[in-house]
Amino acid sequence: METIAYETADGIATITLDRPDARNGYTVRMSDELVEAFTRADDDPAVRVVVLTGRGKDFCVGADLSGGGLDLEGAGEDWVEPASRCSLRIYTMNKPVIAALRGAAVGAGSTIVLPADYRLAATDSRFGFVFVRRGLYPEGASTWFLPRLVGMGRAMDWMVSGRVFDSTEALAAGLVHSVHAPEDVAAAAYELARSLIADCAPVSMAVVRQQLYRMSGMDSPFPAGRLDSRLIADAVSRGDTAEGVLSFLEKRKPVWGQKVPADLPPFLPWA
Amino acid sequence: METIAYETADGIATITLDRPDARNGYTVRMSDELVEAFTRADDDPAVRVVVLTGRGKDFCVGADLSGGGLDLEGAGEDWVEPASRCSLRIYTMNKPVIAALRGAAVGAGSTIVLPADYRLAATDSRFGFVFVRRGLYPEGASTWFLPRLVGMGRAMDWMVSGRVFDSTEALAAGLVHSVHAPEDVAAAAYELARSLIADCAPVSMAVVRQQLYRMSGMDSPFPAGRLDSRLIADAVSRGDTAEGVLSFLEKRKPVWGQKVPADLPPFLPWA
Amino acid sequence: METIAYETADGIATITLDRPDARNGYTVRMSDELVEAFTRADDDPAVRVVVLTGRGKDFCVGADLSGGGLDLEGAGEDWVEPASRCSLRIYTMNKPVIAALRGAAVGAGSTIVLPADYRLAATDSRFGFVFVRRGLYPEGASTWFLPRLVGMGRAMDWMVSGRVFDSTEALAAGLVHSVHAPEDVAAAAYELARSLIADCAPVSMAVVRQQLYRMSGMDSPFPAGRLDSRLIADAVSRGDTAEGVLSFLEKRKPVWGQKVPADLPPFLPWA
Repeated sequence: METIAYETADGIATITLDRPDARNGYTVRMSDELVEAFTRADDDPAVRVVVLTGRGKDFCVGADLSGGGLDLEGAGEDWVEPASRCSLRIYTMNKPVIAALRGAAVGAGSTIVLPADYRLAATDSRFGFVFVRRGLYPEGASTWFLPRLVGMGRAMDWMVSGRVFDSTEALAAGLVHSVHAPEDVAAAAYELARSLIADCAPVSMAVVRQQLYRMSGMDSPFPAGRLDSRLIADAVSRGDTAEGVLSFLEKRKPVWGQKVPADLPPFLPWA
Repeated sequence: METIAYETADGIATITLDRPDARNGYTVRMSDELVEAFTRADDDPAVRVVVLTGRGKDFCVGADLSGGGLDLEGAGEDWVEPASRCSLRIYTMNKPVIAALRGAAVGAGSTIVLPADYRLAATDSRFGFVFVRRGLYPEGASTWFLPRLVGMGRAMDWMVSGRVFDSTEALAAGLVHSVHAPEDVAAAAYELARSLIADCAPVSMAVVRQQLYRMSGMDSPFPAGRLDSRLIADAVSRGDTAEGVLSFLEKRKPVWGQKVPADLPPFLPWA
Repeated sequence: METIAYETADGIATITLDRPDARNGYTVRMSDELVEAFTRADDDPAVRVVVLTGRGKDFCVGADLSGGGLDLEGAGEDWVEPASRCSLRIYTMNKPVIAALRGAAVGAGSTIVLPADYRLAATDSRFGFVFVRRGLYPEGASTWFLPRLVGMGRAMDWMVSGRVFDSTEALAAGLVHSVHAPEDVAAAAYELARSLIADCAPVSMAVVRQQLYRMSGMDSPFPAGRLDSRLIADAVSRGDTAEGVLSFLEKRKPVWGQKVPADLPPFLPWA
């Protein structure tokens, strides 16, 4: 891979935007490599959690304009724009994704992290849905994700004005989960990743994030109740459910045995 | 009823989880008795508001594990899991529901109160969507309700990590409406119930809570506008509407005459 | 027009509720004049932003009760209630709408501004979804808009209780974007309007607000990703996109050439 790096250790896959000289400017190639990397992490049973970050002082300054303008190679009728390729792949992940962000996370740098489970920011973080200021439009299905995260009022403000804002405003609005010193944000992401690996059953985490995305969009809670019932009936005979209850009663750490994706319930409506 | 208590006084039905020795551990039987109690309150024209609470220092510690594991009697294909039985019944209520919570409200203790109109917490309240830590899945259609209350970012955090959190965090996120000293939370719930009874027309309250649940899930505001129009056209000839406007103009308390469910509009699309 | 005023200057249309002696009490006629004014602003290519405000110390006290009761002329089967006429017209606007509010914004005064892009409040602002206290029901499709802005918990509280609340609570809940001294709120609205005109491409702003409203209601992000892709492919050949990118690279203010509605993309699914 040319534009990103992919490493795994201790159950954590780290995906790093790796064009620091271009401040990780987003390209069509980067989007395709991100899709490849997230798919690799999702398919690897040894990977439990994904950390997404950027090399250098910025996560991503947005679309790479180093060629003097937008590079939208192949744009046409059935074409999928580059931010949506990545964000919709993160949406379908069966492993939690933690974004560790410092410096600029503007344009595509803001949109591709919206489907992550966690966005950890730095005191020097800057966000912006700047599309209206370039005569462009929101990308990465961000008009679907953003109002769910921060409400329609804040989403309208950020998207209609295109203004850049800091981590204090992002935290108050609920866009990010926590704010850290720039040199500490990666460590905070790994600490969170390790706690998820230690405490949370792999199959449960995979299903939970999809339940939230898929069931919350329904026009009533009844489909969610039906799926909950089917999942819980299925869980009764699962080893990791027995282990989860037993380890709780015995006040010890659980030892999870099931793997993702191999042990996912076979009847999930989104699979 | 064995596991809960049901009392009515002054227009308020109080439903109390009543297994204090088991810290109100949730059982299949409790879920069925809750459905019965909520249905009784909904059908009784003398009941205007429901208060849901627990006996003792905890609201509910979650699924009863006193038998050494989960008791999911009858779990199978068309089975409805116990938390959904209660939460979906609360969702369909035509009377407002105020949950008065102190101590643990974890697992089912967190999920069954999500469809209540109000959650009043105590300084010692503890919440948790702990399912991933037991190798389980969210229940009570909570993946539909929770993002609507606190946004998708906070919902992902709480559900993917399964961590337990306190009333300060619950209040900041919008999960609860207010926080009180443990010995004061019941009194605050009754004070709120009395004010709703004094100020708010019974039919209006019944319709409003369903409008919010049913119309907000639509993919455009046009169905809401159509229903609003039909309801307001119907209201013109209603005695409680005339009384509501007149008492406002005369600066006095209203005297409501209509009853729920008898006087509900006959054309509600969810009835 | 009898009940409102309509003026344009410097790309800004100002629509003013203009019955100060009745504290801008809302009438059927006012609703129809509002629809006419918003349509005029939407059709006028010289108008870039709309400011909605009220003459005098109050924005709007709600339905005009000066006749001793509700005036719902023509209410019947296919009738559209007056608040929905206005709010659904604002929903479909292709120009951003900034509401500048001081004093009472109660009943219809609260509901018709929910679809605005921005609500700027004053320290003396008072809001209230008071319908249950009049034996009435929410109007203006407010049960669709309000939970999107403030979450379901706060929406339930405000709508079930019908209580009046101040600008501090409105700001904390996300109902309004900022709070100003009463004499300063109009100036703040015009300053915001001028910055949107200077910085943001007209076609982009038109599309963005509709993308947020239309795509966020979908049950998955995939339709949003498809529309993003089509819009961005179309943008590649647009003059305002080239100007937006070039002015950014040259660190100067953009000069927008395209007009709304004439230059809107022809394939928008909501047009």
